[in-house]
Amino acid sequence: MAKIYEHHFQVPFYATDIKGDIKLSQLINQCLLVTGLQSEVLGLTDQALYATYGLVWVVTDYQMDIRRLPHFAEEVTIKTQATSYNKLFCYRDFVISDQEGQVLVEILASFVLMDAQTRKVVPVIAEVVEVFGGQKTKKIYRSFKPDLAKADTPEPIQVTSTDFDQNGHVNNSRYIDWLFTGLELDFLRQHFPKRLSISYKKEVKELAPLQLLASHEGLTSQLAVTSSLGTHVQAVIDWEVVDNGRAE
Amino acid sequence: MAKIYEHHFQVPFYATDIKGDIKLSQLINQCLLVTGLQSEVLGLTDQALYATYGLVWVVTDYQMDIRRLPHFAEEVTIKTQATSYNKLFCYRDFVISDQEGQVLVEILASFVLMDAQTRKVVPVIAEVVEVFGGQKTKKIYRSFKPDLAKADTPEPIQVTSTDFDQNGHVNNSRYIDWLFTGLELDFLRQHFPKRLSISYKKEVKELAPLQLLASHEGLTSQLAVTSSLGTHVQAVIDWEVVDNGRAE
Repeated sequence: MAKIYEHHFQVPFYATDIKGDIKLSQLINQCLLVTGLQSEVLGLTDQALYATYGLVWVVTDYQMDIRRLPHFAEEVTIKTQATSYNKLFCYRDFVISDQEGQVLVEILASFVLMDAQTRKVVPVIAEVVEVFGGQKTKKIYRSFKPDLAKADTPEPIQVTSTDFDQNGHVNNSRYIDWLFTGLELDFLRQHFPKRLSISYKKEVKELAPLQLLASHEGLTSQLAVTSSLGTHVQAVIDWEVVDNGRAE
Repeated sequence: MAKIYEHHFQVPFYATDIKGDIKLSQLINQCLLVTGLQSEVLGLTDQALYATYGLVWVVTDYQMDIRRLPHFAEEVTIKTQATSYNKLFCYRDFVISDQEGQVLVEILASFVLMDAQTRKVVPVIAEVVEVFGGQKTKKIYRSFKPDLAKADTPEPIQVTSTDFDQNGHVNNSRYIDWLFTGLELDFLRQHFPKRLSISYKKEVKELAPLQLLASHEGLTSQLAVTSSLGTHVQAVIDWEVVDNGRAE
């Protein structure tokens, strides 16, 4: 049975956007923080994983379903469990709820184990994942592919040295902000992302020029972050019009 | 006597840079979080300030002196007090210490009160600042001016909608990351900012093109974020070479 870990936090100002909703990038940061806390409690920190096996956890996909985004100063609960794994992928759920216990956001995250030296994915090691109590499964959550046949002119993305983390690559949550490149302020005031699927394909290890390919049709954005090296990230966002009369 | 508020926190992964040091932008985010917590304890939250007086706190300057930056997973203490105020400015200190009580970073922040509607600075209201116990003073900390006579070719800065906060302007901490625009990864691996002075001159309220003017000489960077509207931010950074043998 997968072990559930629960964490309460109050949404800080710096994590919120122009309408006071938590940014998706910041929500992911908080979820990964909670993952780290669970790993600590269960005795297999990222540092221990690296020291014992020479391995690091790498996120490959997030699927986020959003009923409402937590807003500035709201107290929310994040519950997480590493539900299952197959030969290559480990799956973890996050459920973010408000103080009345209403589910606001659900996230499915896919992770792989990577050799820190070779940067190659390695098969799941049973003793590493069994700590978390998840089930072995044959189920594989397939990653999707955005349709960019009708993409607009690519928007350049500016990469700066502060976008990089200790893994020597652009931090995964930075790409989530970059998906918003080119969106008008009024669009962001009037819409929120109802669904985000993002798939990490290739690391960015240098200060090289990137671009965002985007195709916006109706309330769906199909997106890819690319460079001369190929596709780094693929994503689809479904938007919903903000209901200003919504009960908060 | 100014009231001291103390807060402990552990540096999360998402707040750190390529060498695992906390980013200055994230350190400021944490300091402002602590300011908010003190305001709550003393019964004058930002929400109450706005509701009662129609005012908001706005940062005009930070002076940061850094002995060593807290690193990933380190537990540190932030102590803050609103030490003094004059006719227009309120001054607040932050002292960040490690677990042995060694001072790592000292920050002097200058704030003004702004009318939320007119966006004009208003004179300090005694009853608003006296809650924090600071002394009235005639001392004014003058803001500095970087020397940009020999600035390099301006670097464009990309502004995206996620850079904006609920005040409808680019969040102050974003400029701190932008000051690093154009710096090579190896420079950031081998140096850390020993001193940062930053002065906020003019809000950015639209998705307009910005640029970074920079003059790097020796271990000092003189910097300004500008647009067709003028200068938004001025800054000076003094760098120090990382001592990899430093005791941590």
